Amino acid sequence: MLSNKKKYVVSGKSGIKAQIQFADQKQEFNKRPTKIGRRSLSRSISQSSTDSYSSAASYTDSSDDETSPRDKQQKNSKGSSDFCVKNIKQAEFGRREIEIAEQEMPALMALRKRAQGEKPLAGAKIVGCTHITAQTAVLMETLGALGAQCRWAACNIYSTLNEVAAALAESGFPVFAWKGESEDDFWWCIDRCVNVEGWQPNMILDDGGDLTHWIYKKYPNMFKKIKGIVEESVTGVHRLYQLSKAGKLCVPAMNVNDSVTKQKFDNLYCCRESILDGLKRTTDMMFGGKQVVVCGYGEVGKGCCAALKAMGSIVYVTEIDPICALQACMDGFRLVKLNEVIRQVDIVITCTGNKNVVTREHLDRMKNSCIVCNMGHSNTEIDVASLRTPELTWERVRSQVDHVIWPDGKRIVLLAEGRLLNLSCSTVPTFVLSITATTQALALIELYNAPEGRYKQDVYLLPKKMDEYVASLHLPTFDAHLTELTDEQAKYLGLNKNGPFKPNYYRY
Amino acid sequence: MLSNKKKYVVSGKSGIKAQIQFADQKQEFNKRPTKIGRRSLSRSISQSSTDSYSSAASYTDSSDDETSPRDKQQKNSKGSSDFCVKNIKQAEFGRREIEIAEQEMPALMALRKRAQGEKPLAGAKIVGCTHITAQTAVLMETLGALGAQCRWAACNIYSTLNEVAAALAESGFPVFAWKGESEDDFWWCIDRCVNVEGWQPNMILDDGGDLTHWIYKKYPNMFKKIKGIVEESVTGVHRLYQLSKAGKLCVPAMNVNDSVTKQKFDNLYCCRESILDGLKRTTDMMFGGKQVVVCGYGEVGKGCCAALKAMGSIVYVTEIDPICALQACMDGFRLVKLNEVIRQVDIVITCTGNKNVVTREHLDRMKNSCIVCNMGHSNTEIDVASLRTPELTWERVRSQVDHVIWPDGKRIVLLAEGRLLNLSCSTVPTFVLSITATTQALALIELYNAPEGRYKQDVYLLPKKMDEYVASLHLPTFDAHLTELTDEQAKYLGLNKNGPFKPNYYRY
Amino acid sequence: MLSNKKKYVVSGKSGIKAQIQFADQKQEFNKRPTKIGRRSLSRSISQSSTDSYSSAASYTDSSDDETSPRDKQQKNSKGSSDFCVKNIKQAEFGRREIEIAEQEMPALMALRKRAQGEKPLAGAKIVGCTHITAQTAVLMETLGALGAQCRWAACNIYSTLNEVAAALAESGFPVFAWKGESEDDFWWCIDRCVNVEGWQPNMILDDGGDLTHWIYKKYPNMFKKIKGIVEESVTGVHRLYQLSKAGKLCVPAMNVNDSVTKQKFDNLYCCRESILDGLKRTTDMMFGGKQVVVCGYGEVGKGCCAALKAMGSIVYVTEIDPICALQACMDGFRLVKLNEVIRQVDIVITCTGNKNVVTREHLDRMKNSCIVCNMGHSNTEIDVASLRTPELTWERVRSQVDHVIWPDGKRIVLLAEGRLLNLSCSTVPTFVLSITATTQALALIELYNAPEGRYKQDVYLLPKKMDEYVASLHLPTFDAHLTELTDEQAKYLGLNKNGPFKPNYYRY
Amino acid sequence: MLSNKKKYVVSGKSGIKAQIQFADQKQEFNKRPTKIGRRSLSRSISQSSTDSYSSAASYTDSSDDETSPRDKQQKNSKGSSDFCVKNIKQAEFGRREIEIAEQEMPALMALRKRAQGEKPLAGAKIVGCTHITAQTAVLMETLGALGAQCRWAACNIYSTLNEVAAALAESGFPVFAWKGESEDDFWWCIDRCVNVEGWQPNMILDDGGDLTHWIYKKYPNMFKKIKGIVEESVTGVHRLYQLSKAGKLCVPAMNVNDSVTKQKFDNLYCCRESILDGLKRTTDMMFGGKQVVVCGYGEVGKGCCAALKAMGSIVYVTEIDPICALQACMDGFRLVKLNEVIRQVDIVITCTGNKNVVTREHLDRMKNSCIVCNMGHSNTEIDVASLRTPELTWERVRSQVDHVIWPDGKRIVLLAEGRLLNLSCSTVPTFVLSITATTQALALIELYNAPEGRYKQDVYLLPKKMDEYVASLHLPTFDAHLTELTDEQAKYLGLNKNGPFKPNYYRY
Repeated sequence: MLSNKKKYVVSGKSGIKAQIQFADQKQEFNKRPTKIGRRSLSRSISQSSTDSYSSAASYTDSSDDETSPRDKQQKNSKGSSDFCVKNIKQAEFGRREIEIAEQEMPALMALRKRAQGEKPLAGAKIVGCTHITAQTAVLMETLGALGAQCRWAACNIYSTLNEVAAALAESGFPVFAWKGESEDDFWWCIDRCVNVEGWQPNMILDDGGDLTHWIYKKYPNMFKKIKGIVEESVTGVHRLYQLSKAGKLCVPAMNVNDSVTKQKFDNLYCCRESILDGLKRTTDMMFGGKQVVVCGYGEVGKGCCAALKAMGSIVYVTEIDPICALQACMDGFRLVKLNEVIRQVDIVITCTGNKNVVTREHLDRMKNSCIVCNMGHSNTEIDVASLRTPELTWERVRSQVDHVIWPDGKRIVLLAEGRLLNLSCSTVPTFVLSITATTQALALIELYNAPEGRYKQDVYLLPKKMDEYVASLHLPTFDAHLTELTDEQAKYLGLNKNGPFKPNYYRY
Repeated sequence: MLSNKKKYVVSGKSGIKAQIQFADQKQEFNKRPTKIGRRSLSRSISQSSTDSYSSAASYTDSSDDETSPRDKQQKNSKGSSDFCVKNIKQAEFGRREIEIAEQEMPALMALRKRAQGEKPLAGAKIVGCTHITAQTAVLMETLGALGAQCRWAACNIYSTLNEVAAALAESGFPVFAWKGESEDDFWWCIDRCVNVEGWQPNMILDDGGDLTHWIYKKYPNMFKKIKGIVEESVTGVHRLYQLSKAGKLCVPAMNVNDSVTKQKFDNLYCCRESILDGLKRTTDMMFGGKQVVVCGYGEVGKGCCAALKAMGSIVYVTEIDPICALQACMDGFRLVKLNEVIRQVDIVITCTGNKNVVTREHLDRMKNSCIVCNMGHSNTEIDVASLRTPELTWERVRSQVDHVIWPDGKRIVLLAEGRLLNLSCSTVPTFVLSITATTQALALIELYNAPEGRYKQDVYLLPKKMDEYVASLHLPTFDAHLTELTDEQAKYLGLNKNGPFKPNYYRY
Repeated sequence: MLSNKKKYVVSGKSGIKAQIQFADQKQEFNKRPTKIGRRSLSRSISQSSTDSYSSAASYTDSSDDETSPRDKQQKNSKGSSDFCVKNIKQAEFGRREIEIAEQEMPALMALRKRAQGEKPLAGAKIVGCTHITAQTAVLMETLGALGAQCRWAACNIYSTLNEVAAALAESGFPVFAWKGESEDDFWWCIDRCVNVEGWQPNMILDDGGDLTHWIYKKYPNMFKKIKGIVEESVTGVHRLYQLSKAGKLCVPAMNVNDSVTKQKFDNLYCCRESILDGLKRTTDMMFGGKQVVVCGYGEVGKGCCAALKAMGSIVYVTEIDPICALQACMDGFRLVKLNEVIRQVDIVITCTGNKNVVTREHLDRMKNSCIVCNMGHSNTEIDVASLRTPELTWERVRSQVDHVIWPDGKRIVLLAEGRLLNLSCSTVPTFVLSITATTQALALIELYNAPEGRYKQDVYLLPKKMDEYVASLHLPTFDAHLTELTDEQAKYLGLNKNGPFKPNYYRY
Repeated sequence: MLSNKKKYVVSGKSGIKAQIQFADQKQEFNKRPTKIGRRSLSRSISQSSTDSYSSAASYTDSSDDETSPRDKQQKNSKGSSDFCVKNIKQAEFGRREIEIAEQEMPALMALRKRAQGEKPLAGAKIVGCTHITAQTAVLMETLGALGAQCRWAACNIYSTLNEVAAALAESGFPVFAWKGESEDDFWWCIDRCVNVEGWQPNMILDDGGDLTHWIYKKYPNMFKKIKGIVEESVTGVHRLYQLSKAGKLCVPAMNVNDSVTKQKFDNLYCCRESILDGLKRTTDMMFGGKQVVVCGYGEVGKGCCAALKAMGSIVYVTEIDPICALQACMDGFRLVKLNEVIRQVDIVITCTGNKNVVTREHLDRMKNSCIVCNMGHSNTEIDVASLRTPELTWERVRSQVDHVIWPDGKRIVLLAEGRLLNLSCSTVPTFVLSITATTQALALIELYNAPEGRYKQDVYLLPKKMDEYVASLHLPTFDAHLTELTDEQAKYLGLNKNGPFKPNYYRY
């Protein structure tokens, strides 16, 4: 029954993203309908299975083995069978990936050290549903080191790194995930995490809301023991707010998506780099002198504009919000309507979160060789469907690159079929994943240890002090030295020397 | 008794709470007893009396006339005597300044046009206490055009532009202000605005809180008729929050200081320009290759750093807040403690809102010719008092520039004696004043017309929609074209087509 | 005999570059010994054979066919056999690549149109030796359209794009080149171009000097009919200057390498983009906040520094030349000795053209995970050989990425084994190739048509007017509109309205 | 007769040849008959007389004393009368200025120290004709310290700083200069320097060529003993090339104007800062969001564009040279014809070295409040004369700022009446003056000590090694550490370890 609600559409050479379209999404998600907007993907997903350790002949997921993992006998070297992965023999390679990731996630490693003595998660039984990557593995093993028991499934049928799943299983983590699950597999794996004899979760770590959804539908009684939900994605957060609004949220939930460090660092600084990376990898174009229109001047748009301006592009901006529009002006960008520049630009980039920002009419008016891509949200921003008409010819010239050819010979270069460029065609730096994973760990600790009554059955933002703590854990990466307030200064400012340092409405 | 009330000099730009130690402030501020440090000063203050209209011999405030305005007979050409200015004959020159300012404040002029038909301030009796500048005059005359009656005093004993005051008086505005008021004059002027036969204010526009304070102390009954207070300064807002906390705020108040347009545009974009301007005008230094340490990476610090980096300086940053610190890292600045770089830098700039950020110990360790200045808050950031010791020689080399000379011959170049560089040594662009003035006007209209019950006896931020409206009024200046949502898009986003476009916690 | 003078060392996932080490190069090339420094490589080399037209199953160079092209029967559809390529059947796919390249090389296409009527190369018999890519094909077909007959070989045993060679052969060009030639093949191909019954070249287009060298050695008499040599590479130009110095240059030669457009655009603007691209593709690192030292502040160093600074890295520069050093200062970079920062930096980039800039001693002192790469010249800048010692472990983690592991576990990330990052790990934009190819075409036209005596037996730079013409042909790409001098202005400036506009020593 | 010699106002900054039409220049320059337009002016010229040492009542050049210096008795404290200055009593204040300048000219001070032992100018008798400023004084006293005898006149009738002249006279330098000389005074002063009993110059340091011209006309025999001329200005260099071409140059001359350090640092880096400074000081405008067109993309244009782009302006560029045009494109500027944007821009800046770049037709089409200024060359770029028509009203609103008002009320803001903004309205950083003065000193040393035959009767550029030396003397200012070549590296590169490091055609 569930299975026919979903249609998995793979997108990306990395095979990372799935468009999951629920039958019932009209009600639940009519504003943010798909999970396409998620960001926290590891580079390892796209790279390691093909590129890494090329000397290791056995390190592949080439389907030499077509047997479904569900039909295989699963047993690790210690004899445990409480997991389901593609091939437990790949554990060693997965361990290598995890070790490399550990080096790049010093904040999480520091958290292990600092909090380990007290085991702040002792007694916690966490069920998780995220991408299964080396970075996630570092998070899971950190949670373990802090005292928690974990069971884990994948939030995406394509994003599991089989070797990492094997390594986790070998280390004793009950992991149920492989690359290329069917829809039925997907829910079976989640169920295996939750539906266990003699074990009931008391914490949920979710990315997209499917796990939460499953428990609501199947095991609503479980919520009696659950202390809280930590949710990372836009979609999942949206679902939680809807539950809350409908009075159906029965435990506190932490909205990790809107924390300062995620919003400002992930969106602004990451996109500043990934727009260049994504365009280069797909088109090898030169940025200097190119005319670009960026639709939307939020954090993502700001990052894209700054990067392209720095590389010598001439950038135009469209906006609907007069405040962001005025920021664009002050930052040196001409604020235009898309129609004003559509005939002259070399690149069109959408970063709005809106739908049909680029319409067929716009596409008809673009000049030959114009590149069109989406950095914003979901796959709605460019009306790709409008290009599926008989008079237009599609020509796939590379992975993720289509030429759409008009009858007069004009070609439009469409990237990633209008899905997110930065997910499909570039990689996400570990630094960003580290910030997110650290935030998730702190949110779990906070919810698990919060005194009765601190959190109601509502959706919360991470306390500012925790945001600040996440940031502080990442400063050593940059050999950055924070200044401490003197007692006199703290008194003068009316601040605690350890923060929080800003009022809640501070905008950074 | 009154005199020690005048010492509230604080006017910050960072979001950090300005803690005002009422008790010990007598000592702290006894060197700069005036409110000269406040932000919203017009360029005209520093410039026009010497530079403008040089052909006009009589356009001076050279004290050829030492008679106190209070002792003069005041009468304008229409016979009115309900004002007190330095010299009513200067009205014509003031009018010229006002006319030029009008050209640069199109948003306010547009507001006059758009709202004039309906006279949204008909019946409003506004008493104001602000800097008296050409830009203020445009605001006042806009309020008048919208239907209000106004009476006005100066919020600073030095900042009045006499010619503008004269022009306003000549036009029939009861203005009580001149440059160089005594403290006694200061309160006398305020009293003359408020204490009038047959006229009671029903709105307050304040900048610093002195007017509000005066009415609380002297005419508490007036508040029965007052519909609201609009306050612009950090100090004044702080006072209002304290009143509110103490349960003593008896009317709604609008905090204009923390509106997005003020915070982001005034602080970030303005300081980006004024740090260069202030340093050039005082020192003629070259920025290229210079090593600079900027203390504080709030909006002001961000602006300073961006500008100096763009001009080829090498910039170091100090911070106490790990989030801002991480932003500094990602923006490409070495985050250090002041001590690490104090021996090597050519310029030290404070933007913290804190006190004693630069201490005598730091000053002792600076290299010869190091420039020290304050862009932050008040005059507390640099411990200037510590330089008033016998072994150091002070030498004034230009207006606003002191050389402090150590026994070994080392010279430190101290700008504006540690007061705000951007107020003392550069000018504030009309564009920014326009944003602020427009916000004030809208806040007055909102409070005056709000239906009973919308606002309680509390301190409010301007509704986001009004912030957006202020921004939209300034877009035509840049020939900027906003995009409008289609109905379909608005529905998809769940937004009203006319805004507001963002949740309240949006950080821009 | 010749064969043992060369040792071909492949470098790069692109398989582009060969280190060709002549036995006699000690004399000839002791300053610039290898051809590794060449830049003019097409993206197609690295991409198309694996990425493009993935739907086309037959578009591969997978060695399903191990027969040497020399042993195959070669015949195109018109019956000609005067060529030698891998597989003539791939012609169609090569034609597609050429057509796409044509769209991105409007200057060459414009040259075809403008000069076609007069056929300025009518009678020219050009023998060429360059990389065989789609862009080269556009150049060759342009030369043909201008009236020339061409015969062509590859200047590199790995850089030939077989499909393009097939397309050229199918169109009737005598092309002798395939990917993966042996050394013997290499010279055999060159010989087949030159040693033809009834055809003698009268122009040489060379890239690296091998063709020129071969004719000097084998067919010195040919130079009697040869009107000139056009040489593109640093190495080839160096050889020519040595010949000239030794009095052995018997025809005029045009040094295309040092033309303004090549130096400024190829080095500065290209490297500004390729440093980011190369680092991202190999390491997926985040640039923000990273500490980087760039060795050398010539055009390449300037480009790298500008890009990394814009992405939020903290950049240090080393220089030996005080003028470039002062430029680095004024551009906002700390000028240091490598030793001062080697312990703290995250990335080391060499751009000096020098040798042993990064020594084992430096490598020993780098911190864990430091990335080391070379953007400069050849493979000499980093002393990679010093890392081939028993106590260090090499681990290939990806194509072009080695971890060198110290006994204490420290890892250094070495890219492209110290060879050129921008050749090995990123692509060269067609725009740059277009500039170079246009310059080559103009140089051929100039030398071929120059009146007797204009050029002696010497090495010449392209006349400035031609440099300007190349630039002007590329302006339409950017929709850029040049201003024309009025007669009056031209007279005032003492300039011809059509240029040249600058004295020869102008630095741009 | 003399008067029409004084009209050579030209002082360009672009590399474009300044063609000086001697024939018609009488008409062209009759509005600005003085040499006020020349570059190398000290900040002191514009500032010190009003701003510096404001406490010092007597430090003025207010013409309390109308007696001509020529009619005064001149005698310093040691009894010497061999000078002619405005007021010898101002010596003390001048000395202060000189001492401050010394601190900012470390290169010259280093030169004093390094070269003092050997007194490389022992026996040199230098006659100089330059602006008389504190910086020049440091140069003169350096020359003295190196062994030279000097006599000095001013190269501009307005640029002498009287206090500095007094200080030099008091120290024993025969100085003949004051602010506000008549034309007759001007030549009388020069003559007094040259025409001395018992003293004949053997070196000339000239700025503009007037001194050289005078000796040619009046004392041609003096050239027999003169070892060389060092000339700084475009105009003077142009004259020398003409003399050389005409075979009339009878001594070697050094063209200091075209040295790398002067061209790149003075023009590019200085103008990057002075454009902002000049616009701010005159108009207090905000740069963010403003639309600007910069005419000309030479070094000056590049500097202006970079600065304004960094401050958030939207910048358009016009160019006549396709190479510079292509650079503008790659740097991210729209290349347009002036007509395309003239209606929409807020600021027009000329940097071409050309004439009538902005015509009346352009001015007619500009929008209200458009600012027009010249950063380029002379006063020819904007056709200011065309604005002197009856229907336009001129209104001086500040020093250097005119509003030109059209009949419909439109105002154009014209800065410095179309003369050089950076000279009229901003200051020249001492750093740049230091580079120039050091170059002059080295050029004098080189010419004076060159072995017979090294220099013929021709115009020379400073040897590259000296350019490098000048640069190296300025590196300590930035605490910059140069890397030294190892012996092995020097051999590899074929370079001397001490330079020169680049071929002559290197472009930097």
